Amino acid sequence: MVMFVTGAAGFIGSHLVDRLLAQGHRVIGVDNMIRGTRANIATALANPSFRFLEVDMANPQSIRTVLYPVFESLAEPVHTVWHLAANSDVAAGVADPGIDLKDTFQTTYETVALMRAFDMKELAFASTSAVYGNHPEQLVETLGPLLPISSYGAMKLASEAHISAAAESHISQTWLFRFPNVVGSRGTHGIIYDLLGKLLKNREELEVLGDGSQKKPYLHVSDLIDAMLFIRGNATEKRALYNIGPEDDGVTVASIAQAVLDASKTGARLRYTGGNRGWVGDVPRFYYSVEKLAKLGWRPSGSSAQAVSRAVAELVVERGLI
Amino acid sequence: MVMFVTGAAGFIGSHLVDRLLAQGHRVIGVDNMIRGTRANIATALANPSFRFLEVDMANPQSIRTVLYPVFESLAEPVHTVWHLAANSDVAAGVADPGIDLKDTFQTTYETVALMRAFDMKELAFASTSAVYGNHPEQLVETLGPLLPISSYGAMKLASEAHISAAAESHISQTWLFRFPNVVGSRGTHGIIYDLLGKLLKNREELEVLGDGSQKKPYLHVSDLIDAMLFIRGNATEKRALYNIGPEDDGVTVASIAQAVLDASKTGARLRYTGGNRGWVGDVPRFYYSVEKLAKLGWRPSGSSAQAVSRAVAELVVERGLI
Ligand SMILES: NC(=O)c1ccc[n+]([C@@H]2O[C@H](COP(=O)([O-])OP(=O)(O)OC[C@H]3O[C@@H](n4cnc5c(N)ncnc54)[C@H](O)[C@@H]3O)[C@@H](O)[C@H]2O)c1
Ligand SMILES: NC(=O)c1ccc[n+]([C@@H]2O[C@H](COP(=O)([O-])OP(=O)(O)OC[C@H]3O[C@@H](n4cnc5c(N)ncnc54)[C@H](O)[C@@H]3O)[C@@H](O)[C@H]2O)c1
Repeated sequence: MVMFVTGAAGFIGSHLVDRLLAQGHRVIGVDNMIRGTRANIATALANPSFRFLEVDMANPQSIRTVLYPVFESLAEPVHTVWHLAANSDVAAGVADPGIDLKDTFQTTYETVALMRAFDMKELAFASTSAVYGNHPEQLVETLGPLLPISSYGAMKLASEAHISAAAESHISQTWLFRFPNVVGSRGTHGIIYDLLGKLLKNREELEVLGDGSQKKPYLHVSDLIDAMLFIRGNATEKRALYNIGPEDDGVTVASIAQAVLDASKTGARLRYTGGNRGWVGDVPRFYYSVEKLAKLGWRPSGSSAQAVSRAVAELVVERGLI
Repeated sequence: MVMFVTGAAGFIGSHLVDRLLAQGHRVIGVDNMIRGTRANIATALANPSFRFLEVDMANPQSIRTVLYPVFESLAEPVHTVWHLAANSDVAAGVADPGIDLKDTFQTTYETVALMRAFDMKELAFASTSAVYGNHPEQLVETLGPLLPISSYGAMKLASEAHISAAAESHISQTWLFRFPNVVGSRGTHGIIYDLLGKLLKNREELEVLGDGSQKKPYLHVSDLIDAMLFIRGNATEKRALYNIGPEDDGVTVASIAQAVLDASKTGARLRYTGGNRGWVGDVPRFYYSVEKLAKLGWRPSGSSAQAVSRAVAELVVERGLI
């Protein structure tokens, strides 16, 4: 089948591309390279079943010029669209909501418009736990109201909503994945990536935002891709909305910082900036329900702690710390 | 206090303007007149405390040219922003989602940006039951997932989300009203308005979309404005989200059609087009919970049926049928 992946050169997108290619699909990938890298898709680029195009998915002009000719000349139509392009710097979007308007929402709007133009019927979308906002309750899919506290979360919810409406007209099947924190190799952002970046600059002291008590669920990217493919293959509702995550309630920032320190072998001291939030728009603690996904038949291969230690081991090498 | 109302020349907006003026406030109202009319604000325009400006709230250029000079020269800052501008033709947005992107979502985005520029702190927003989508359960504020089936509902949910995120930074207090079907004089759209319009063209036969079984809660606009002002005055949560509606589960399209026929005194026959939906994107039946609002201390003055018969009586005269 032909698969179309947006954000293909990013962290999760590049892993998805590799997996789809391994399954024997032809893959068309796009990215505007704002955070994606050629290094992430180095293996894929060597595969003749992969076609990569640099496109700004928020820009109708870029889509029309670069993508339309490709889709117009396809022998076989695109089967499933995997929309992963987005701004992944949550803090940046708090300072300037225009970033999430463009890269998180308008990419969705234009992806849906492209699907309408080329009669593509299936859409899998990378949403996030951030759509829930700051809820004391366990985050289960049936929970409301959805009151996000970041522009990132807001524009992901806007995207879900727009996709949901399109499922009433020209799109026949949608999968809405609400990701937890995802970690692993090819990281382009996130706490482990950031901490390692700081250690690269200063091997004496490691600054950690907050007081270390923020606790969140983490999933390794390989498990995440498993789950996405499993849901895509097994959930048949028109709007299949699933939390994806580990089965535990997460690990603390303090324990991640310690894991990073240990793996880096720098012997740096930890310094906490204090307060219970990393930044404005950060949800300090959440309890994720993955029961719906378990009922569908999928379970993660490991815990949050295992995902973190595996990712730390991968990233410490990848970022050249040891 | 100075109040700023978007969509001021529309159905609900014009009633809100009148009420705010009656309470002694100064009111600045804007509308792009796509559906709003000068007739709706005729009384207000005669009041020196009212200032009306024709602005496209989805267009930053229009806002900068027309609104910025007014806000820059205000002696007293704007106290509360009432954002009601939106596309109110749900069916039009299903055919072209660009309409709701522009008039329902971008108006919200630009209103929030304007508030940031002029340091306005309080925002009251007209949302809708359509954000819930097609749920079999009773529509209570804690219900999820929110999977709208129209672009209109989607872009209202996107607006709620964007406002919620802004409440984490520059906006200090928000009220999110989820309106039911609102009826009354100065209607610019809606079922009663449409049926009367059809009768004006053809006094022999009245065509009704669907099979007449669609059942929804209706509130008279005077009650709606009461509720908005009550919530604005009494709900103190940072994101005060309330369903507003009658306490019953509504009236059917068939009974509305009959009420319109009776009041019109035309003796036309009814013809149903069949099926349980009026149009794609129409939610055929919903049960609205207004318990949260009742707990806050507000109750509607009448039932759905009373709201409809009062509105029919008003509109049959206003539209010149009798
Ligand atoms: N990593 C996580 O923990 C996490 C959690 C929840 C949701 N998600 C979502 O998963 C998806 C993938 O995230 P990721 O962690 O791989 O981040 P990422 O930044 O590595 O990947 C996103 C990719 O999208 C690209 N992109 C951004 N704007 C674009 C545009 N206008 N046109 C084309 N490409 C554009 C970027 O260059 C990047 O390569 C995103 O939608 C993200 O919001 C990630
Ligand atoms: N009437 C209902 O049953 C109902 C139900 C739920 C929600 N609402 C919401 O209540 C609000 C008022 O609705 P209404 O019934 O009075 O509809 P309306 O169409 O009479 O009022 C909306 C007004 O906004 C104006 N407008 C639209 N786009 C604009 C733009 N870009 N810039 C400036 N003005 C613009 C229109 O000209 C119109 O006067 C809307 O936000 C609507 O979505 C109404």
